[in-house]
Amino acid sequence: MAAGNGELLGGAGEWPLVRALFSPRSPLPPDVRVGIGDDAAVLSGEGEEDWVVATDTVTEGIHALAGDSPEALGWKAVAVNVSDLAAMGARPCHAVLAASFPSDMAWSCADSLSAGLHAALGEWGFVLVGGDTTATPGPLTLSLTLLGRLEPGRALLRSGARAGDRVYVTGTLGDSAAGLDLLREPPSDWLEAYDRLVERHRRPRPPLEFGRALAGIASAAIDISDGLAADLGRVAKASGVGIELDTARLPLSAGIGEWEWAGRGSALECAVAGGEDFELAFTAGPETLEALHRAQYATDTRFTEIGRVVPGRPGEVIAGDGRALPGGYDHFPPRGEGP
Amino acid sequence: MAAGNGELLGGAGEWPLVRALFSPRSPLPPDVRVGIGDDAAVLSGEGEEDWVVATDTVTEGIHALAGDSPEALGWKAVAVNVSDLAAMGARPCHAVLAASFPSDMAWSCADSLSAGLHAALGEWGFVLVGGDTTATPGPLTLSLTLLGRLEPGRALLRSGARAGDRVYVTGTLGDSAAGLDLLREPPSDWLEAYDRLVERHRRPRPPLEFGRALAGIASAAIDISDGLAADLGRVAKASGVGIELDTARLPLSAGIGEWEWAGRGSALECAVAGGEDFELAFTAGPETLEALHRAQYATDTRFTEIGRVVPGRPGEVIAGDGRALPGGYDHFPPRGEGP
Repeated sequence: MAAGNGELLGGAGEWPLVRALFSPRSPLPPDVRVGIGDDAAVLSGEGEEDWVVATDTVTEGIHALAGDSPEALGWKAVAVNVSDLAAMGARPCHAVLAASFPSDMAWSCADSLSAGLHAALGEWGFVLVGGDTTATPGPLTLSLTLLGRLEPGRALLRSGARAGDRVYVTGTLGDSAAGLDLLREPPSDWLEAYDRLVERHRRPRPPLEFGRALAGIASAAIDISDGLAADLGRVAKASGVGIELDTARLPLSAGIGEWEWAGRGSALECAVAGGEDFELAFTAGPETLEALHRAQYATDTRFTEIGRVVPGRPGEVIAGDGRALPGGYDHFPPRGEGP
Repeated sequence: MAAGNGELLGGAGEWPLVRALFSPRSPLPPDVRVGIGDDAAVLSGEGEEDWVVATDTVTEGIHALAGDSPEALGWKAVAVNVSDLAAMGARPCHAVLAASFPSDMAWSCADSLSAGLHAALGEWGFVLVGGDTTATPGPLTLSLTLLGRLEPGRALLRSGARAGDRVYVTGTLGDSAAGLDLLREPPSDWLEAYDRLVERHRRPRPPLEFGRALAGIASAAIDISDGLAADLGRVAKASGVGIELDTARLPLSAGIGEWEWAGRGSALECAVAGGEDFELAFTAGPETLEALHRAQYATDTRFTEIGRVVPGRPGEVIAGDGRALPGGYDHFPPRGEGP
C-alpha cells in the first residue's frame, strides 16, 4: 500500500524514508564512488587510498534495553559502525560522535557509557576526533560517524553477487537475538550459555580483519544487522539475483542450542530473522575458496557456506525447498509502489 | 561545584560531558591536525588538501520549537554544520545524516523536513552520501556529519588570538533570539520585522564564503551558536587571552530595534547572550584590515569591529568598563574543578 500524506511513518519501514529523505536531488560529484544504499559511502581520495564513511545511530530502549547498563550502548555505538566498515572491506581510522543525553541522566550512567565507548575504541584502535553533545527529552541516543580507508576500487559492495557464486556467513547466527530474549525475560532455571548469549547481544564483535581480507576476494558483502534473510535480500536486490539458502547448514552455537532446548524459542528462526548478529554475509566465486581459507587462517575467523546465488527471482531469498523465507525480501516497498 | 556520581547531568553544562566522554584515552594519530575542542576536526590528507569533519545535532523542541514546521529543523541540521566549517575556513563537500524519527510522525512532516534539508543542501552546493534512519520514542533528532576540504595549515582555530588583535563579528547579532521569542509568544500587535526575525531563527545563513576568505587572514574564529560572549569566551580561553568588548559597537539590525521598541526585551542582551546567530566572530591583527575589506567586498558580507584582544585575564570576556559579561566566561567547569 502506498504511504500517502496524513499516514504515519510507523509501519512504513525504513527504506521509503531513506529514499524519500536522503536521495540526492542533484548529480553526485565525481569523487563519490559509492553513495547512499550500501553499508558506507566511498569517496575517492587524492592519495593512494579512498575514504569510507559510515554513520549509524544506537538508541536506548531500541538497540539496548532500557534499564540495561549504558556501557553496552557505548560499545554498540562503535561496533555497529565498525561492522559497516568490515562489510566494505575498509579499516577504521577516525570517528566523531553526536550524543543526545537525557538531562535526568545520572553521572554514573555517563561514566558507564564512556567506559563502553572507550573499550570499543581501544578494541579496534581508533580515536574520537570530534563530537557534539545535546540534551534531549527523549532517550539516550548516540550517532557515531566513522571514517576509514581502503585501496581504491576494492570496496565490497552489495551489488556484486553473480549467479554461481557461493554464499557464506562468518561466526554463528541468532545468538544476539537469543541473548536479547534472555535479557527481556530472565530464565527461571540456570542456563550455562546465559553470559555468552547476553554478551553477544551487548558487545557484538564484528569480524573487521576478516572483512578487510575479503576485499579483492568476495564478490559482495553485507553486515547482518537486521537479520540474515533481510540483509541477504538487500544483496540479492542490489545484485539482481536470487539467493538460495541451505538452512540445514546455518551455523548455530552450542549456546543457542541450549537456549532452544530450554524451550525459549526456535534457534533456526533466530538465525534467519534475528537481528544484530553483526557477522558478515558474503558471496564469492567457487574459484576463490583457497583464498577464503587463507583469509580464515590469517584472521582466525570461522566462516560457513550456507547457500548459492541463483539466476532469476531477483531480490528473493529462498530456502532450498523453494519457500521464501521470512524477511527474505523487501518489506519496505518505496512510496507509491505496491508490495 | 564538582559533579560527583549520583548527581544528574542537567545543569552541569556541556563541557564536562564532552571532556569526560570524548577525550582520547590514547595519543592522537599523526594525521590528526586538530582533534576535539574546535569547531571541527582537521585530518591531513595525502593530497593537496586537508579534510575537515564537523558533527552537530538538532532536536525538535530544542533547536526548533515543538510544533513548528520540521522544514526549519531540516534546514538547520545542514546550516549548523556549514557554520562550523565556515568557522574553520573550509569548504563543505559531503554529508551523512543520522535521523531519529518518532514513529507517530506523519508523512507530511517527513516531506516538510526533507524540503528544508534539500533546500539547505542546494544553498551550499553539496549532497548527502550516506545516512541512517532509526525510530525513536523521543523527539525528531537529526545528526549531520559534514566533511569539507581546506588547504593544509590554513584552518582557523580558536587558539590563535593574540593581544593587540582586533575582534570582529559578521552580520547583526541577537536577531535569532528575538525571532525565537516571537515564535514562542506571538505579538498582539503587528511587527514589520516579524518575518525577518523569525527567518533568522528558522533559516540561519552562516557566512560560508567569508569564512573561507578569512583563512590565512584571521588569527582565530568561532561561529556564534551559544551567544557572542560565551563563544568569544571559548576563543579567549583557547588562546590564553582576554577579550574586551565595546558593547556600543555591537551590530544590531533595524528589526531587533523594532522588537525592543515593542517592549519585548533588550536588544543588547540578545546580542551578547542570545544563541543561534550563526555569524562568525573572529580576531585579526590590525595590519590585516585591508585584506579583511577585500574579503568583505568579494563575498558581500558585512563585518563590524567590536573589541580587542588584551593580555592577562585569560578566558575572560569583559565590557569596555571592565565588568564581566553574562556568559562571557566558562559556565561549565570540568568535573573536580571549582568554578
